[in-house]
Amino acid sequence: MKHTKVKDLLNSTKTLQEVTAKGWVRTFRNNQFIALNDGSTIHNIQCVVDFENTPETTLKRITTGAAICVSGELVESQGAGQKYEIQVKKLEILGDSDAEKFPMQPKKHSLEFLRENAHLRVRTNAFGAIMRVRSVLSFAVHQYFQQKGFVYVNTPIITGSDAEGAGEMFQVSALPFDNTPRTEEGKVNYKEDFFGKQTNLTVSGQLEAETYAMALGQVYTFGPTFRAENSNTSRHLAEFWMIEPEVAFNDLADNMDLAEDFIKYVIKYAVDHCADDLKFLETRLADEEKQKPQAERSEMSLLEKLNFVLDNNFKRVSYTEAIDILKDSTPNKKKKFQYLIEEWGADLQSEHERFLVEKHFKSPVILFDYPAKIKAFYMRLNDNTEPGKETVRAMDILFPGIGEIVGGSQREERLDVLIEKMKTLGIDEEELWWYLDTRRFGTAVHSGFGLGFERLVLFVTGMGNIRDVIPFPRTPQNAEF
Amino acid sequence: MKHTKVKDLLNSTKTLQEVTAKGWVRTFRNNQFIALNDGSTIHNIQCVVDFENTPETTLKRITTGAAICVSGELVESQGAGQKYEIQVKKLEILGDSDAEKFPMQPKKHSLEFLRENAHLRVRTNAFGAIMRVRSVLSFAVHQYFQQKGFVYVNTPIITGSDAEGAGEMFQVSALPFDNTPRTEEGKVNYKEDFFGKQTNLTVSGQLEAETYAMALGQVYTFGPTFRAENSNTSRHLAEFWMIEPEVAFNDLADNMDLAEDFIKYVIKYAVDHCADDLKFLETRLADEEKQKPQAERSEMSLLEKLNFVLDNNFKRVSYTEAIDILKDSTPNKKKKFQYLIEEWGADLQSEHERFLVEKHFKSPVILFDYPAKIKAFYMRLNDNTEPGKETVRAMDILFPGIGEIVGGSQREERLDVLIEKMKTLGIDEEELWWYLDTRRFGTAVHSGFGLGFERLVLFVTGMGNIRDVIPFPRTPQNAEF
Repeated sequence: MKHTKVKDLLNSTKTLQEVTAKGWVRTFRNNQFIALNDGSTIHNIQCVVDFENTPETTLKRITTGAAICVSGELVESQGAGQKYEIQVKKLEILGDSDAEKFPMQPKKHSLEFLRENAHLRVRTNAFGAIMRVRSVLSFAVHQYFQQKGFVYVNTPIITGSDAEGAGEMFQVSALPFDNTPRTEEGKVNYKEDFFGKQTNLTVSGQLEAETYAMALGQVYTFGPTFRAENSNTSRHLAEFWMIEPEVAFNDLADNMDLAEDFIKYVIKYAVDHCADDLKFLETRLADEEKQKPQAERSEMSLLEKLNFVLDNNFKRVSYTEAIDILKDSTPNKKKKFQYLIEEWGADLQSEHERFLVEKHFKSPVILFDYPAKIKAFYMRLNDNTEPGKETVRAMDILFPGIGEIVGGSQREERLDVLIEKMKTLGIDEEELWWYLDTRRFGTAVHSGFGLGFERLVLFVTGMGNIRDVIPFPRTPQNAEF
Repeated sequence: MKHTKVKDLLNSTKTLQEVTAKGWVRTFRNNQFIALNDGSTIHNIQCVVDFENTPETTLKRITTGAAICVSGELVESQGAGQKYEIQVKKLEILGDSDAEKFPMQPKKHSLEFLRENAHLRVRTNAFGAIMRVRSVLSFAVHQYFQQKGFVYVNTPIITGSDAEGAGEMFQVSALPFDNTPRTEEGKVNYKEDFFGKQTNLTVSGQLEAETYAMALGQVYTFGPTFRAENSNTSRHLAEFWMIEPEVAFNDLADNMDLAEDFIKYVIKYAVDHCADDLKFLETRLADEEKQKPQAERSEMSLLEKLNFVLDNNFKRVSYTEAIDILKDSTPNKKKKFQYLIEEWGADLQSEHERFLVEKHFKSPVILFDYPAKIKAFYMRLNDNTEPGKETVRAMDILFPGIGEIVGGSQREERLDVLIEKMKTLGIDEEELWWYLDTRRFGTAVHSGFGLGFERLVLFVTGMGNIRDVIPFPRTPQNAEF
């Protein structure tokens, strides 16, 4: 008999039907009540075993983690907390789970312990919920862009171009590492490597996506990106997924509108489609908050935070305004900031971003028009700025508890200005000949942004460490599994 | 005034309205008719310029590839081939395109030339169509699985595990290549590398996906995978996107059902949502076929081929049956095969697969129950097979013109059998401790497959070379862009 998913059983409109379920035992109480989970929902279905007519040897094998198949009648449950249960007529142990050895016992495990068991942690309620929410969010990303007529573009992962400068890169090679071929000058001879040149893992698909936007109009990427930075923080991964839309004819204001609309859409989608999982994660977060001193606790529950983002406009604040606010702020005057804000041009640190978002505006903030000096070469130089105070049409979106979730800009569409900037920064024109072609042939105003997908998942699930929202995190000293 | 996408203009239900359009000039005829494309559709909108009242200097700048903005009235077109056109009142050149230098002139370019200009080829009709179809197909993939309750899982791209053995791997490192740190024995000291160990680019997310299937029930991956194989063919890429569903409690028959249903769904989705692009690609293919000798031409048009797949069941044929057919076949008897089929156990070559699919069955074929010796370690050993003729529950789906499009299997769920097999093949148990845990704790029958996304796009678009269905192909000696 075909089995039915637990989710479908719990949503069934008929009782007293013969059903079969397959899944893993979460708990087994009183030699009688199995809580069975199959991953289709956070909820278990209770399976009531006729223990008097079940061999003792079988009962002993109903342990946490064991895979079983049960058949019986789906009936209304007498117990609290569930609508239906299965009155088991037939029970088969598919795969045992030694109670002494199974690491995922039904008790609270530390997040560190669970990370070391990343292959099994998804069998817990919390990680099941996180990964379902992550999946639904990623679908929402595709749905949002596809409905608007964007074309999904797979930009290359292995790249021969290292000019973007978004961060330290991993090198990719098929050469024998122990004994690399050398040139006459004693350098590694990349001509003998697989691609005939030095190659790296991409830090961003933006430059390639721009070439597509200048043909297809609206495009987006959603793929893995890499940073070989030794950042052992709760917000950084060496391998993470990034979403990068790029739109021809969009200026910076359009870009901010798109980013805000997009973020609200995907959060709303998760709120609408992951109610049970988010409710569980809300309780988890509330329990965690209780461990903190009163002053550090969040004023809002998880769903309140999500709804707050949905219901309010993101504050749009120029860098110059932000600097004025920060200069006048209490932590700056009382020298509580580690990096004091003394003058226009300073790069904002995480402490400043948090102050703006969490203390001053108490809202997501879009900072825009940053000093040209602290931003990337491809950003559109603002017209009519004071000499020495040149700004670019950049924007960052800052979220409470997360910090930067989006970085974007209007791109410099003027070939001469772009080449001039590249010269100043020592970026090789030859290397980016294809990128410059977009400005040589039919250039136009265009804009885009990058959103770090794991930071979004972090915000929506209320988790505190980015390593807990990706299945198998890659961080310094860790590439297990 | 906000501009409207060309697709929306062409689908408009109102005429005589003031509209603005932005895009790139495809052609400019008689100093009067601009064919404008913005990538939203394969169709251009005709913009009729009042050339008598437009400065000669402006007219001269309306060249192929130039970005322009036009405003005027949307009216019914007098010309053939289009319903609407824009009577231009205002025309602005946004970005020039030097007619002498722009590589994408309105003429037929070779596919080789276009590959060298992968950043610009998407401005042609064919590549615009291909990339829109690719995007729609990828959305169909997500929609299919999400509707069925599958969880999308991002398995790691950088992996410390090289045990899967699906192919040659690229190595990933942050060590200085020119001067790698060494151990006392003179070997590269990977302990000093970013991850503290040797790491590679993934060849498959299957093993990690299995751990998730054994918790969430139904999962799928869709991400880049890599092969450092020096295969300079029209069907191989060093970097390609793969879809890998994995389902707990599915046996091989369920797996074949899932694969067939999935492939039909996504092809149907493209047929339903990409009518204009596919029509163009059908004509392109027909033109290409005309260059071939009569005997080599396909009997079916592109859409006929797609509908043939939708309307017919894939033939399910065991390896043993296939060998019998091949042994008795005319090319085998007449020694036309490069590799003659002499006995059971032979690995099937592309020529044999093509014979089965294109000559014998004239239909997609699912071959199953392959000899254990020619398949991977994790495949389920069949019960009750003759000694020396052991088979595994593997299945490959073969498509006309494409060859293998899917490879999958029921997985070996028995810990002891799996360990025995690994020992025989010299695969390190320690290395795969986490994979074996899925069999130690609550093991169950489960199955999955991998589908090479580009091969699917190749089939649906009717293109002949896999380098033409991914934006920036990675192949031996080529990592440009």
